[in-house]
Amino acid sequence: MSLIHPVVLCGGSGTRLWPRSRKAQPKPFLPLVGERTLFEATLERCSDARHFAAPIVVAGTAHLLLVKEQAAGSPGARIVVEPEAKNTAAAIALAAALLPKDAVMLVCPSDHHIADVSSFRTAAKQAAALAADDWMVSFGIAPTGPETGFGYIKRGASLGEGYRVEQFVEKPDLERAEQFLADGNYSWNGGIFAFRAGAFLDELKIHRPDIAEKVLASVAAGREDGALFHPDAASFAAVDAESVDYAIMEKTARAAMVPVAMGWSDIGNWQALRDARVGDEDGNRARGNVELVDCSNVLAETDGPRISVIGLSDVAIVVDGDEVLVTTMEGAQKVGKLTGAAKQ
Amino acid sequence: MSLIHPVVLCGGSGTRLWPRSRKAQPKPFLPLVGERTLFEATLERCSDARHFAAPIVVAGTAHLLLVKEQAAGSPGARIVVEPEAKNTAAAIALAAALLPKDAVMLVCPSDHHIADVSSFRTAAKQAAALAADDWMVSFGIAPTGPETGFGYIKRGASLGEGYRVEQFVEKPDLERAEQFLADGNYSWNGGIFAFRAGAFLDELKIHRPDIAEKVLASVAAGREDGALFHPDAASFAAVDAESVDYAIMEKTARAAMVPVAMGWSDIGNWQALRDARVGDEDGNRARGNVELVDCSNVLAETDGPRISVIGLSDVAIVVDGDEVLVTTMEGAQKVGKLTGAAKQ
Repeated sequence: MSLIHPVVLCGGSGTRLWPRSRKAQPKPFLPLVGERTLFEATLERCSDARHFAAPIVVAGTAHLLLVKEQAAGSPGARIVVEPEAKNTAAAIALAAALLPKDAVMLVCPSDHHIADVSSFRTAAKQAAALAADDWMVSFGIAPTGPETGFGYIKRGASLGEGYRVEQFVEKPDLERAEQFLADGNYSWNGGIFAFRAGAFLDELKIHRPDIAEKVLASVAAGREDGALFHPDAASFAAVDAESVDYAIMEKTARAAMVPVAMGWSDIGNWQALRDARVGDEDGNRARGNVELVDCSNVLAETDGPRISVIGLSDVAIVVDGDEVLVTTMEGAQKVGKLTGAAKQ
Repeated sequence: MSLIHPVVLCGGSGTRLWPRSRKAQPKPFLPLVGERTLFEATLERCSDARHFAAPIVVAGTAHLLLVKEQAAGSPGARIVVEPEAKNTAAAIALAAALLPKDAVMLVCPSDHHIADVSSFRTAAKQAAALAADDWMVSFGIAPTGPETGFGYIKRGASLGEGYRVEQFVEKPDLERAEQFLADGNYSWNGGIFAFRAGAFLDELKIHRPDIAEKVLASVAAGREDGALFHPDAASFAAVDAESVDYAIMEKTARAAMVPVAMGWSDIGNWQALRDARVGDEDGNRARGNVELVDCSNVLAETDGPRISVIGLSDVAIVVDGDEVLVTTMEGAQKVGKLTGAAKQ
């Protein structure tokens, strides 16, 4: 089987992980779980040269320095520098246009955590096999709870290495999420996809010819600069910002999915981050100069000042520069709307 | 009636109000309630020249600059500089030795909050009247709850302006504190006293002649320096550190008390401080750059960095320099034992 081409997308601002995640150094580029950043771990997952070609990284100009630094360990990596953010359909189309038509792409967000890399790689191979047959393939992540924050994928008939997609479902309410969990045929849509590059562009031309045309024009008028590729800014500016889910997955007749349980988390807020980290015997997760007394399941981290905590449970306390955040786990969803997070 | 001589004691480290209260700038010298510091408010309460003479302040060398600055508005104030801390019996004896024998002293800790100054002054006059008759007078503060953190005073027979003390009671357990509250004859011992200077020294000579002798020697060999008085360090170093409660109040045959309800708080921890401040409609008390979302009865204060809080109730969050404290109100008693508070 031919090599899989990782396409790593560096969007995602991570405002719900403010104040640690900031505009200048957002979520993908932070060591949120373990020693490596989420972006570094994403590259590392796709670094086995027996199965993976060198990656294509799609990133914005604002984070180019971070990308270069953190991709230094990935030989042959190419970096596509988006003049501006235009959502995932355009980002993936840029990579597809730069690859041979028969290259199979594995599209990976760079801001997720995956605990079980072995299961990830098994699913990647299954997805690549389906993509080689021109299926538009989504990873279907086995749900571990009645999550209302994700879209769902309902599986259909078997395709051997995976399943047809019967339906993409928007974020449900709690009642429906509980039905999905009980049903067993629903997976989370985690934004990981496999496509044959040519097939992707063909589908885009059918369903969103405007996006296809303008992205291809921006590539045709683009500029190579060593490992960097700069699409033409004027053409790219005219591209509609649309997600790959809306532009292709929900419209194509050839949507497939590969089910996978791999300890996945989108690290979507401080609660998810706490859960992705290993706790001590009281369930506490502390980083930096922290003293916890009578605490349980507390996440506390600081880039300098000491944090001293007494008597709290299920709370996140984050000190970063001139910002101090204290939130309940229930409140973690609202962090992005705080003045400090919104007005960066 | 002759003037009352305020004697303001500047002991009290306030480690349970760490990290705001620190060794270098402890509790009395901080604007914890309102705009003025507790020390300034103590002087202000005793500043009516129709009733009060200029104060005598007893303070340690470490805080002399703070005392001078904050006592600048009290004309004629004298400052007795203790070479080292020797508890309240010695501190009061120093002041008594510097006053005429017939001067009536009103001994005031400088780290308490009193909301109702009018009631304080009425009680001060009653206490002074009893003290002029050589009673050793304690303010008996009307309890507002079954407090286990204070000593209690049980009142005896009436003396007109107050009562004889039937008994001083050590800090009770909760059950006894509830009995005291129901009984109605028990008051809190808040450490506010009135004595005739000569009578105080006479009682000290009877019950702790060693303390009396060494304090008087340190005053005899002391040195005047403008508004400052420096007791002789060598003599003072030999003085036993003892509280006025043990040295005199629990031993004298002439213990009296004046009952008073005056919105008193010892601001003994962050919970007490929260309760002494006026809250907003959700009971929150914020100072500095603070954003509170879905919070109630939260105290949050910062000397610089922004504090953002979501979803918490009955919690204190304090940012001071390189320290961040987060504690439940229940946990507030333990603040003094935190590494940061203990190892200053």
